[in-house]
Amino acid sequence: MSRKWVYRFGDGGAEGHAGMRDLLGGKGANLAEMASLGLPVPPGFTITTEVCAYFYAHERRYPDDLRAQVDEALAWLERTRGRRFGDPANPLLVSVRSGAPVSMPGMMDTVLNLGLNHATVEGLAKATDNPRFAWDSYRRFIQMYGDVVLGVEHYRFEEALDELKHAKGVRFDTDLDADDLRRLVERYEAIVREATGAPFPQDPREQLWGAIGAVFGSWMNQRAITYRRLHEIDDDMGTAVNVQSMVFGNMGDDCATGVAFTRNPSTGEKEYYGEFLINAQGEDVVAGIRTPQPLTEKMARENGRPGTSMEALMPETYAELCQVFERLERHYRDMQDIEFTIERRRLYLLQTRNGKRTAKAALKIAVDMAQEGLISREEALLRVDPASLDQLLHPTLDPKAERRVIAKGLPASPGAVSGRAVFSADEAERRAQAGEEVILVRVETSPEDIHGMHAARGILTARGGMTSHAAVVARGMGKPCVCGASDITIRHGERRFTADGVVVAEGDVITIDGATGEVMLGEVPTVEPELSGEFATLMAWADSVRRMKVRTNAETPADARTAVRFGAEGIGLCRTEHMFFQEDRIVAMREMILAHDSEGRRRALARILPMQRGDFIELFEIMAGKPVTIRLLDPPLHEFLPRREEELAEVARAAGVEPRVLARRAAELEEANPMLGLRGCRLGIVYPEIYEMQARAIFEAALEVRRRSGRTVVPEIMIPLVASARELELIKQRIDAVARAVMAEAGETLAYLVGTMIELPRAALRAGAIAEHAAFFSFGTNDLTQMTLGLSRDDAGKFLDAYRRAGIFERDPFQTLDREGVGELVRLAAERGRATRSDLKLGICGEHGGDPASIAFCEEVGLDYVSCSPYRVPIARLAAARAVLERRAACAPQPSSD
Amino acid sequence: MSRKWVYRFGDGGAEGHAGMRDLLGGKGANLAEMASLGLPVPPGFTITTEVCAYFYAHERRYPDDLRAQVDEALAWLERTRGRRFGDPANPLLVSVRSGAPVSMPGMMDTVLNLGLNHATVEGLAKATDNPRFAWDSYRRFIQMYGDVVLGVEHYRFEEALDELKHAKGVRFDTDLDADDLRRLVERYEAIVREATGAPFPQDPREQLWGAIGAVFGSWMNQRAITYRRLHEIDDDMGTAVNVQSMVFGNMGDDCATGVAFTRNPSTGEKEYYGEFLINAQGEDVVAGIRTPQPLTEKMARENGRPGTSMEALMPETYAELCQVFERLERHYRDMQDIEFTIERRRLYLLQTRNGKRTAKAALKIAVDMAQEGLISREEALLRVDPASLDQLLHPTLDPKAERRVIAKGLPASPGAVSGRAVFSADEAERRAQAGEEVILVRVETSPEDIHGMHAARGILTARGGMTSHAAVVARGMGKPCVCGASDITIRHGERRFTADGVVVAEGDVITIDGATGEVMLGEVPTVEPELSGEFATLMAWADSVRRMKVRTNAETPADARTAVRFGAEGIGLCRTEHMFFQEDRIVAMREMILAHDSEGRRRALARILPMQRGDFIELFEIMAGKPVTIRLLDPPLHEFLPRREEELAEVARAAGVEPRVLARRAAELEEANPMLGLRGCRLGIVYPEIYEMQARAIFEAALEVRRRSGRTVVPEIMIPLVASARELELIKQRIDAVARAVMAEAGETLAYLVGTMIELPRAALRAGAIAEHAAFFSFGTNDLTQMTLGLSRDDAGKFLDAYRRAGIFERDPFQTLDREGVGELVRLAAERGRATRSDLKLGICGEHGGDPASIAFCEEVGLDYVSCSPYRVPIARLAAARAVLERRAACAPQPSSD
Repeated sequence: MSRKWVYRFGDGGAEGHAGMRDLLGGKGANLAEMASLGLPVPPGFTITTEVCAYFYAHERRYPDDLRAQVDEALAWLERTRGRRFGDPANPLLVSVRSGAPVSMPGMMDTVLNLGLNHATVEGLAKATDNPRFAWDSYRRFIQMYGDVVLGVEHYRFEEALDELKHAKGVRFDTDLDADDLRRLVERYEAIVREATGAPFPQDPREQLWGAIGAVFGSWMNQRAITYRRLHEIDDDMGTAVNVQSMVFGNMGDDCATGVAFTRNPSTGEKEYYGEFLINAQGEDVVAGIRTPQPLTEKMARENGRPGTSMEALMPETYAELCQVFERLERHYRDMQDIEFTIERRRLYLLQTRNGKRTAKAALKIAVDMAQEGLISREEALLRVDPASLDQLLHPTLDPKAERRVIAKGLPASPGAVSGRAVFSADEAERRAQAGEEVILVRVETSPEDIHGMHAARGILTARGGMTSHAAVVARGMGKPCVCGASDITIRHGERRFTADGVVVAEGDVITIDGATGEVMLGEVPTVEPELSGEFATLMAWADSVRRMKVRTNAETPADARTAVRFGAEGIGLCRTEHMFFQEDRIVAMREMILAHDSEGRRRALARILPMQRGDFIELFEIMAGKPVTIRLLDPPLHEFLPRREEELAEVARAAGVEPRVLARRAAELEEANPMLGLRGCRLGIVYPEIYEMQARAIFEAALEVRRRSGRTVVPEIMIPLVASARELELIKQRIDAVARAVMAEAGETLAYLVGTMIELPRAALRAGAIAEHAAFFSFGTNDLTQMTLGLSRDDAGKFLDAYRRAGIFERDPFQTLDREGVGELVRLAAERGRATRSDLKLGICGEHGGDPASIAFCEEVGLDYVSCSPYRVPIARLAAARAVLERRAACAPQPSSD
Repeated sequence: MSRKWVYRFGDGGAEGHAGMRDLLGGKGANLAEMASLGLPVPPGFTITTEVCAYFYAHERRYPDDLRAQVDEALAWLERTRGRRFGDPANPLLVSVRSGAPVSMPGMMDTVLNLGLNHATVEGLAKATDNPRFAWDSYRRFIQMYGDVVLGVEHYRFEEALDELKHAKGVRFDTDLDADDLRRLVERYEAIVREATGAPFPQDPREQLWGAIGAVFGSWMNQRAITYRRLHEIDDDMGTAVNVQSMVFGNMGDDCATGVAFTRNPSTGEKEYYGEFLINAQGEDVVAGIRTPQPLTEKMARENGRPGTSMEALMPETYAELCQVFERLERHYRDMQDIEFTIERRRLYLLQTRNGKRTAKAALKIAVDMAQEGLISREEALLRVDPASLDQLLHPTLDPKAERRVIAKGLPASPGAVSGRAVFSADEAERRAQAGEEVILVRVETSPEDIHGMHAARGILTARGGMTSHAAVVARGMGKPCVCGASDITIRHGERRFTADGVVVAEGDVITIDGATGEVMLGEVPTVEPELSGEFATLMAWADSVRRMKVRTNAETPADARTAVRFGAEGIGLCRTEHMFFQEDRIVAMREMILAHDSEGRRRALARILPMQRGDFIELFEIMAGKPVTIRLLDPPLHEFLPRREEELAEVARAAGVEPRVLARRAAELEEANPMLGLRGCRLGIVYPEIYEMQARAIFEAALEVRRRSGRTVVPEIMIPLVASARELELIKQRIDAVARAVMAEAGETLAYLVGTMIELPRAALRAGAIAEHAAFFSFGTNDLTQMTLGLSRDDAGKFLDAYRRAGIFERDPFQTLDREGVGELVRLAAERGRATRSDLKLGICGEHGGDPASIAFCEEVGLDYVSCSPYRVPIARLAAARAVLERRAACAPQPSSD
């Protein structure tokens, strides 16, 4: 029983097509597809992945009838190209390339120019009228074939090349002439003979089978195996082998080579875009020996070199190429990145693929194509990577501006900004109030720096990762931030830092780019983001598709306003502790912490109450009836006490206590693992006064706003760090009592919800019981990730890299939700919670709420909303829409693949 | 349709029996049982719990036919007792008591002496020939009835009593005579009239219905509701009401009252034991007015007062009582604690219950009774509380010795010990080497104190809870420890502490009692534990019943030997880090931490290798073929660096580096939340050299021991803090490579197992995948509890008390496994792990492995073994056996209760 092992393509047709990826590999299927479209593809044939499977199932032997099928295909190829394998006058040369069903770039082997030998190299020299090129091709072929097929160590060829250059006294390969290369070939052949005990094979057919065997063999090289394990690719999939005739753009002035885009990949404008070189090979462009010429006259005119374009110089071929562009874009329904070669006026397409593009271009192309009717609006949504929108929402460095980069850290929060370096939060605030623009530079930040972070235009830290305090808060504020810039050495006492040999003193201007992590000396001009019409259009399309609501994590009026402007539909997380750090409040807060009894605490809290009420009034007014979820005090109390000796004395003086009293209290509150300590609702249980004050402030604010605006506010009060139903029950009882008291005093009624964060594994497990007392759950996936993985966000930076290199974490679990671990708990809590209370409202307010992959998970689990920092709201809107579309696609019946 | 609401008991029979607990309540059912046995119980009747249910279902009204049934029962009671309700000549008096199906001690109301009024009080005075007693009974009745039934506030009666005493110039109630009390009754009646607007009810029937209503009403008082919620008792269960005729032991010299035990509750000896008083009421014993007399002549002789016993003075009644003892012990099949009254030569039993006893007595009684054939061996196992064995395994203070207690902390690790106070681990070691016995006194301990803890006889800390480092390590070592003794103030610099006004300087002798938490001045003599024959017998019975193996957590030879002596069947957790703190090793360890590269680390580790190998050789030899599970390095590296400034300089000098280099490295390693940081297998991933050295030491030791002893050692290597299958896979690959290398070097083969701790929630969730690479799981429930609850053991002490008071935690989750949260993860991991690998070995090695309630859970989940500290091994053996019996009982078909 014979089987078809070989599929031909080219010459106006093909035996395969794009749908045969599994059999022909990605490259083979695509070449077949282009050939079927009638596009001029250099002909060739594909040996299927089934041969690969056979190869490994039969001790690296081939099916019996493979040789006959290859011979037949080769004969067809010779006929089609009018050249013969091994023909010195007019030799057929081929490339032999791997091509698996999924892309594994650079993992497997390739051999080019196969078919060259002592005889054909001369034929090639004559045909190209370029002996140097021919001999260079041959020596490269020996080197590549020697390495890949014969296993001769690469360095031996390199050494011979170096020796020759040394002997000739030249520096570059290009300084060698044809004779030099001819001599080098002799040396190379000697190397092969020494290493293998046999001469370099002169028979093209022998060369071909050697290359085929090497490509199949490379499927199981260590590099490829590791790659597949990391990307969870099945070892049984196998690779195909593509044998394709070579074409040459360097046979004379009627030859050329080039790359082109069907639209502008930088701006997204609907215009052809590209470069080409006459009488050249693709390599020449890469080598940068000659400057490529523009594809179109528009480009040529813009460069001040009219008449140098392909459009002008090769109008007929250009016209043919334009037809190909239209054809390919219509066929693939996306902007194409095309490689072409012109061999003696004849156009060949070597490759087409969806072109890479900037975020801006992606947006414009998607919206344009939908409006042109080329793709649907849903497809347009799927064409724009939500994460890439981040680039469009912040100012960016003027690409033309000069810059002096003195350090590089992590790109923690995008946007480029300049300002005077300051080294303390207080100084930042002082200078900002005086009208200066400042960048806060700290080793790392803590909640005590919040006022300084608010005052600063950007933040730079020497320590901490992508999810350090500085990074999280900065992203929340939408402020540029570079963190973990370990190259800078901060001398806090001397108020300066050094980096790259430069000293930056307080007041010196620096620029940071939170999108790249670069720190630059002086002011670098920036350009403001243009939220073009396409942006608004795409967002509207996203809103019409998505099911989940998008809220924001915000507590300051500025953040809340920004978020509303970006389309937030409510506040999912208002962290009240951030309201306690302001100058006038922290004093009362510390007084509360130092109080000996409930009475003393109440006295101090009474001073905070009106301020806190004022905060909520402002927030409710900005949100204008949209839901607002307020989380009661969460962090451990020691975060509110000073840390450094000198500050301690100052605070003690302000609080009217002896420094040692303050020191003792601070020591009492100190914790070995603050993350797992006296915080969250535990504070509410131990010091009920705090939550009572906060509940009162919320209720009074809601009533006040209703009085002022006539608009009903239904506050959602959220209790953090709940581990058991009983905790929530107790705290809810107290909140309900405060509500009754406030209503009685006001003589008015008031609606409100009490719910909880689900951020401890136990809370997820006990969600059924907890839901008895909760109107909503909000998944605090930052802490849930920390607890589930036993991994501190602040400390993980030290080994996350090693973990990623070892393939343990594919992605940072603090950026993208760990579906298998944390995700199972989220899913389980959602199910158990809803089993108890079918109308339970479910949301997420961890950093993951702004991460597209995590948002897709939230859609799968059926959450009601995601909440993220203001600048990520548009990202979340798009991601939520895409999540719906992706689920729809996953659920739709699949067309059968045969 | 009439229903039976009232059940009689007494007069040689009863309408109910012990099986009718749900209907009659515990007390009613037991009184009925005794009466049915023909024992002399004062007659009475029980109003059923169904009346209680009716009462609450019908707005506190009674069933129509209840009154008739109560009247009938009352008439029967009058006939039986030959007395009449309200008869001035011979009044019937009754008690009215609650009695729910489950015991709720002190939660509901009781009324005694009901039936007294102006007329009957005179009759009582005459009958008892004791007017003072009669009037005192009446005033107490008014007070109790006024409070419980009429709702008159208690303090008003107290005030009147105080006024009277003041007026009379006396101090005690007992100084008041009959006339005084008669006047007090008048005052009390006036108080009732003022408060209720009506005179105190004189009609005994009215009194009775008032009391019945009050007892039913007390089912729903706040105290009872709270108690039920905390103990998860159903509100619908309801209480019964017991109306019982009063008997008096104080009607003359032919009357008496007493308490007796059928065996000695202190030693467990099979001998009667008790006290009695002639012409007295039970209250008199409590009031301590007269010294009770011994029950038996043996006791009287021992007290040097022969002829004063009941045996001598009332030989006939004593003989009757002895028959009752035999009868009751045979019937209830346990040692009984009996209250009796003799009213005019007639014996009445007021109560019998299983007697409380010391741990020692419990053990002896259980074994004796089984050997007497009274109970089965299985029942004997269920009679001894495993936790109580702890008291038998350690020296205890001589009960006769005088002591001066200067402070009290938590009873962290049992045993009493004396020694000289020392304030540093080094000093402890120095003095111990010089032959002194010392007690290490620290604010809290850290792993750096281990050598001092080993050297000391006991440990005292001023901070930390039952699961602090000091407590856990001390329990592991079986050393007495008192921790969190916050009354002591340590001046480390001055090498002294103060407590209760006393200064204890270094070298002063103190005594600590780890079973009570007491800290005493000077040396208090102790008595050694006697592991009597009963102990060995019971343990053997337990071993024949239990399914789970019992291993120990041990790393030192001393601990391992102790554990084997206590019956450990292997080591479940050998914490290798404890082996790194010894003087000669910590230097190499620090050198490793300071090394710049893998090469430097390997050099330092090579110095540790032989020592580590020596440790394992010794351990394997002691364990003589029993399984040994070795956990590779777990704690974060900074635990090995010095903390204090002065120590830092010293260590830097020893390590030959500049102090600032050491300080910088220490700062680099510092972590915000070390519990969630770079520790466990993360160290093994980042610094593979460490685990490789440890694996080599283990394998070489195993080979060496086989060579020496011919005994095959199969080491079990355990990887800590695994969160994902990939981590374990990577580390196992490296361990396997080391094994191959060691085998190749030795030319011998070697069997070993690689397994993992399950101590992160994610590991539990991913157990199915992790089991692919693990031969065993050991649940590290200490960390699993910390992560699941988001609760640091070190920090939780601050609020655990508030949490227990609020009813959030019933038990400390670090002592008894949280079944609902952590337990679900354990169950799930066991299921998923076994689904992947059916022969997966499962164990537990957290502190919970020595806790009986947690061991019962392990049996339910089907773990293969538990592992605990050496001194808890006997406890675990017994608890494991009981867990089997309890499960068997739970699965057996239940006899129907009617």
